[in-house]
Amino acid sequence: MHNLSETLRLRFAAPGGIDAAIAPETAQDSGANTPAPRSNRRGRGKRAPLGQTIQQLPFGQIERQIKPIDLISEDHLEAIHQASLTIMQEIGLEYMSARARDIFRKAGADVDEDSQMVRIAPELVAQALKTAPNSFSLTPRNPARKLKMGGGFWVAGSVAGPPQVHDAISGRRPGNFEDFKKLIQLSQYFNAVQMFGYHPVSPIDIPANTRHLDTYHVCQTEGDKAYKISAIGRERTLDAIDMMAIAKGMDREAMKQEPALVTTISINSPRRVDEAMTDGLEVMALHNQVCSITPFTLMGAMTPVTLAGALAQHNAEALSAIVLTQLINPGAPVLYGTFTSNVDLRTGAPAFGTPENSRANLIAGQLARKYDLPYRSSNACTSNLADDQAVYESMMSLWSAIAGGAHFIHHGAGWLEGGLKASFEKLVLDAELLQELALTFGPFTADVADLAVEAIRGVPPGGHFFGEAHTLERYETAFYSPMTSDWRSHENWEADGSKSARERLTPLWQQALSDFKAPTLAQDRREALDAFVAKRKEELAGREPE
Amino acid sequence: MHNLSETLRLRFAAPGGIDAAIAPETAQDSGANTPAPRSNRRGRGKRAPLGQTIQQLPFGQIERQIKPIDLISEDHLEAIHQASLTIMQEIGLEYMSARARDIFRKAGADVDEDSQMVRIAPELVAQALKTAPNSFSLTPRNPARKLKMGGGFWVAGSVAGPPQVHDAISGRRPGNFEDFKKLIQLSQYFNAVQMFGYHPVSPIDIPANTRHLDTYHVCQTEGDKAYKISAIGRERTLDAIDMMAIAKGMDREAMKQEPALVTTISINSPRRVDEAMTDGLEVMALHNQVCSITPFTLMGAMTPVTLAGALAQHNAEALSAIVLTQLINPGAPVLYGTFTSNVDLRTGAPAFGTPENSRANLIAGQLARKYDLPYRSSNACTSNLADDQAVYESMMSLWSAIAGGAHFIHHGAGWLEGGLKASFEKLVLDAELLQELALTFGPFTADVADLAVEAIRGVPPGGHFFGEAHTLERYETAFYSPMTSDWRSHENWEADGSKSARERLTPLWQQALSDFKAPTLAQDRREALDAFVAKRKEELAGREPE
Repeated sequence: MHNLSETLRLRFAAPGGIDAAIAPETAQDSGANTPAPRSNRRGRGKRAPLGQTIQQLPFGQIERQIKPIDLISEDHLEAIHQASLTIMQEIGLEYMSARARDIFRKAGADVDEDSQMVRIAPELVAQALKTAPNSFSLTPRNPARKLKMGGGFWVAGSVAGPPQVHDAISGRRPGNFEDFKKLIQLSQYFNAVQMFGYHPVSPIDIPANTRHLDTYHVCQTEGDKAYKISAIGRERTLDAIDMMAIAKGMDREAMKQEPALVTTISINSPRRVDEAMTDGLEVMALHNQVCSITPFTLMGAMTPVTLAGALAQHNAEALSAIVLTQLINPGAPVLYGTFTSNVDLRTGAPAFGTPENSRANLIAGQLARKYDLPYRSSNACTSNLADDQAVYESMMSLWSAIAGGAHFIHHGAGWLEGGLKASFEKLVLDAELLQELALTFGPFTADVADLAVEAIRGVPPGGHFFGEAHTLERYETAFYSPMTSDWRSHENWEADGSKSARERLTPLWQQALSDFKAPTLAQDRREALDAFVAKRKEELAGREPE
Repeated sequence: MHNLSETLRLRFAAPGGIDAAIAPETAQDSGANTPAPRSNRRGRGKRAPLGQTIQQLPFGQIERQIKPIDLISEDHLEAIHQASLTIMQEIGLEYMSARARDIFRKAGADVDEDSQMVRIAPELVAQALKTAPNSFSLTPRNPARKLKMGGGFWVAGSVAGPPQVHDAISGRRPGNFEDFKKLIQLSQYFNAVQMFGYHPVSPIDIPANTRHLDTYHVCQTEGDKAYKISAIGRERTLDAIDMMAIAKGMDREAMKQEPALVTTISINSPRRVDEAMTDGLEVMALHNQVCSITPFTLMGAMTPVTLAGALAQHNAEALSAIVLTQLINPGAPVLYGTFTSNVDLRTGAPAFGTPENSRANLIAGQLARKYDLPYRSSNACTSNLADDQAVYESMMSLWSAIAGGAHFIHHGAGWLEGGLKASFEKLVLDAELLQELALTFGPFTADVADLAVEAIRGVPPGGHFFGEAHTLERYETAFYSPMTSDWRSHENWEADGSKSARERLTPLWQQALSDFKAPTLAQDRREALDAFVAKRKEELAGREPE
């Protein structure tokens, strides 16, 4: 009851907030708070940069200040660890690549060529964990876009892999090159999306054998951020490395000094690793690029139905491929990845953003910390629409990932429908969630001016702080101003059409695409990239890359 | 890309999930997954109880397993503490009640009768913190509804205080007794709502001077859970205690042995406490009922614009009233409450579920732990609609409250529009969020059967676990089954009308009201309650309670 009366008191006592204190005639709870376009709004002290009408946080990383959440005891963590050692040593994983098996055999692993099974002793795991780094950076062609992964620094990328794309104007449709390009542009535009997923949607209207050349070309010409690549096979992986090298004005050798690319190495759970994956892993590790080792483990389907069992298997699968990276190149950057969720056991349908998924995110983070490895998680959801369900599922994913200590949030923006659909609206929505979470866990200050005891002394009991010098000096930068929230009164919101948050997302991506300007790329590098793509297209004419 | 292929592989390989393994002819991804009514779905091993068609978790508390998040350093925490000691000792709070000032004076505080200012030395605060308990229970008339507050145990109540009510069928309207009753019924029905807020909506169509009698009567006859009361003034507070005593079959003295009621003692920030509040506080503390001391502090309006300053003031206000409870009755149960968020500084409009709000929730939890007091937080949002914005704001509130160590989540279900509106749809949505969060932080087991090494041994590489004995023995209880999520494929979801999550909320509360049965209340207690209300209405005829 007091909340109501206080709320009303505040609204009547100071209907114009700060603006009433500064320039009463301009401050009304009217259109000033219209969510889009936002050029007329303030927050964090900045108007939108010239040519951009959507106000957002600047590009950058806000260091997470918390000790990540530990959900389970040290004993339980150790029990999972020991079970996974047993799985690796006694049961083994099937490595379909003879090259991979050869590497394992030479390192002393027990390899059965008939069954293709590789069994690894705990000592080999321990050795790999000694050489794998606990943090590294990604440096794309624009060094101002450099990103740290490790410690308090985490990176959110856009969605990767969907065959379908959706927006509220054009509906659901198969992936295509035009939408791929727009999703890269949106990922470049929104600062909270720090790197590109690969690919944000599959452009199935361009030839599959050279698709990677066209898409990486877009990543370098429409954007200047780090990105994920597909490391399915040696040739595609080398093309990705070469194109990043060209854009950075260096050669393959120099690329080894400075990671810029990430790939997902997935395990075909349970316990199978296919040849194209380990081929890609080898090329990435040899060039000191980042492998995100991620078993895709849906409990009850690809793993036991129990969380402890799912994580024991997941952990064995992840550690085994992490060992391979370190055997190939000791010190190669590698992420401990998790993608453990449950299925609807009646229908077999995967479910994401569930309590089980959140718990897996938290515990996998503990495992990664036990091994002192950077940790990859996801922003996943099951919902068919960028609606309430999508938000609560994404928030379950994101909070557990970020408070659980993740360093890479894959699929951070734009994922819908269990990963079957990239969504323009969801990308904007996720950018909002990512900004809010980054600020939540950011630095805190409590110096004398922050503690404001003198300001408190100056305001009488029952008074307000709107007109105080302490407030006026800080109000423009004091609070975060969301892109997608509407904080207007019911009456003003209703008068403006009673728009739901989902409806407000559409004009935001439209505005972003309209504002979008590709970042500059030196003419010589652009030409070298064009030439590389032309040459490789000739070489790949009529065949698939190996 | 692997996620997609895996997802598809799974969907095609095992389209019927577990049911296909058990009874292939009945399992299709068709209507079996229709969200409401849910009598045909399984999850956590239980069908809905007889007469209830919505499947939900049973009533009870799931002990939080984590150490709550610490956002700021011990040094910063101490700086806030010291600033608040200075505020209490040097600047003081205005206590408008002569009785309250008298109690403070007798305890050695510095009291100025002209300004009504009370200044408290640190020693008085330290003494109060020695007697205030760090946990307690609430025991309503049905002892099976007993709730712990403290340690890992937290309680979520329904929204309290809105003047307006909304549902998608009838729209927005002023609060009334009929809707009040329905909101109590829904709060009784949904197990995740563990106690009632007071009131979930203000029934302004019944006389104000006796409204509390009618509403508490509904709380006892339509429900059997603990509830919040309004402690504005002595007489209303005593009526609430008497009515709970009657329903429990005891007298006022016996009530002192067993807390059953909670009230919010709000501070009229900055630094003013009105007489009706301390009158209510005194009656509650004397009867050993729970005072939730909650300064309502919107940064930039009722406090400094800085988070450190807001929390320094908040802390001084909270501790000062906590001292009063312990002076009145050492050992009286008291909650350290926070309600610190920001305003839109352009319009003065309050905003909830913001990053600043989340940070305040986390830090206030640290302060409560510093003082070893149970901690009250909230599930608040600003959105006008139970839409995406409502969900992300509520998730920001809930995650920071629960992972921040809260023991009481006030406004846990049904709050919209900055507390100006109770929403039927939001109540169901919040019940979903509360269930998911309770499970997320719940117990974990990792015994041999959980770790499932033998089950893993039994499934070949690339195989699946659907038909395994380990799975079949557990699948009915393995995973949480949400009330409000739709996990169907796009095609089936579309064929069923492409309903958004918000649209699916309406039939859920309609179903709940249709299923609702009032819990039994012994005839003699019912008659005694009726008689008490009749007698008190006579006594209050033509006047306001004191």
